[in-house]
Amino acid sequence: MAKVRLGPTTNLLPMPTILVAVKTGEGRANVLTVAWAGIVAGRPPMLAVEIGQHYSTPFLEREKCFTANIPSTKLMVQADYCGMVSGSEDPDKPKTCGFTLLPATKVSAPIIAECPLNFECRIVREVPAGSSKFYLAEIVETHLDEEAMEGNDISPLKVDPLIFTPDGFYHALGARLGQAWNVGAALKKG
Amino acid sequence: MAKVRLGPTTNLLPMPTILVAVKTGEGRANVLTVAWAGIVAGRPPMLAVEIGQHYSTPFLEREKCFTANIPSTKLMVQADYCGMVSGSEDPDKPKTCGFTLLPATKVSAPIIAECPLNFECRIVREVPAGSSKFYLAEIVETHLDEEAMEGNDISPLKVDPLIFTPDGFYHALGARLGQAWNVGAALKKG
Repeated sequence: MAKVRLGPTTNLLPMPTILVAVKTGEGRANVLTVAWAGIVAGRPPMLAVEIGQHYSTPFLEREKCFTANIPSTKLMVQADYCGMVSGSEDPDKPKTCGFTLLPATKVSAPIIAECPLNFECRIVREVPAGSSKFYLAEIVETHLDEEAMEGNDISPLKVDPLIFTPDGFYHALGARLGQAWNVGAALKKG
Repeated sequence: MAKVRLGPTTNLLPMPTILVAVKTGEGRANVLTVAWAGIVAGRPPMLAVEIGQHYSTPFLEREKCFTANIPSTKLMVQADYCGMVSGSEDPDKPKTCGFTLLPATKVSAPIIAECPLNFECRIVREVPAGSSKFYLAEIVETHLDEEAMEGNDISPLKVDPLIFTPDGFYHALGARLGQAWNVGAALKKG
């Protein structure tokens, strides 16, 4: 088990692929793909997300909200397009991608109907971090495709989320291996 | 594509499974499993991680550092054990799990040799978030198993990271589907 030292890196595995949608004008939105994000609080649910300086940034700071839309693997090409082309080059990325924008319930940004899982997010703080900053956002509503439910809970394999890895590739979610707060009992003593 | 509203949730997909190790005494460490974390900065690399009030918390706040160790799917039982049993019940979880603790290079916490990917992290800030808080930590070193390299980069499928999903199950990483900043070009015009 020889280890190689890579220095400071952002090689966390896995990362989500998130389509951040923000209102840019009346009935208009931009969509930007990000992977640097994670849940950081439960009461209320909060997401930390790094967005950087992009076409969307001034709109995010004006609206103080966005939606975080989780694409399935079927949307890989669209998700990648929204990460490689700026809204300054294509001011109607949702149309280019064939996305249907639905009104959210609590924020000005729309949700993307084709994404099976959607979060409505209100920015509560900008947190400085090194040479940049990230947003701390409260998740105020969650939308899930009916077909991606299993009983009353979310079915990860039915959502089929597009996963980003820091070598610059997309992956699928693999097999379910075991239940949390359960399989570890095998190591309990006594 | 009927949508169901679930209210505010933490249902982000996917989440990492991270074994947080912290020095508790001379040559001793506790290991705690968390999933609420994400990269939030690149220069320098930074990780946001929610840990909550646990056995490890006072040690984290004394040491101001930890290691974030990414288990492979082979370590699912050990990873789950470290998430379900407190250090107050088992003060030597690394031994129970059969972990080999190796000294880190820049922080007081050890790295877990059996985990293919390890980050040395220095806490730079506590960020209040709702009823709790999370740590913003700088990643000061990365260790990777030599066998998990592909050329000069990390091979996600060789790391074989244990993935957590918010329905309370562990999954494997699935097939590589496409290259980022590449497959989206299919939607470019002109």
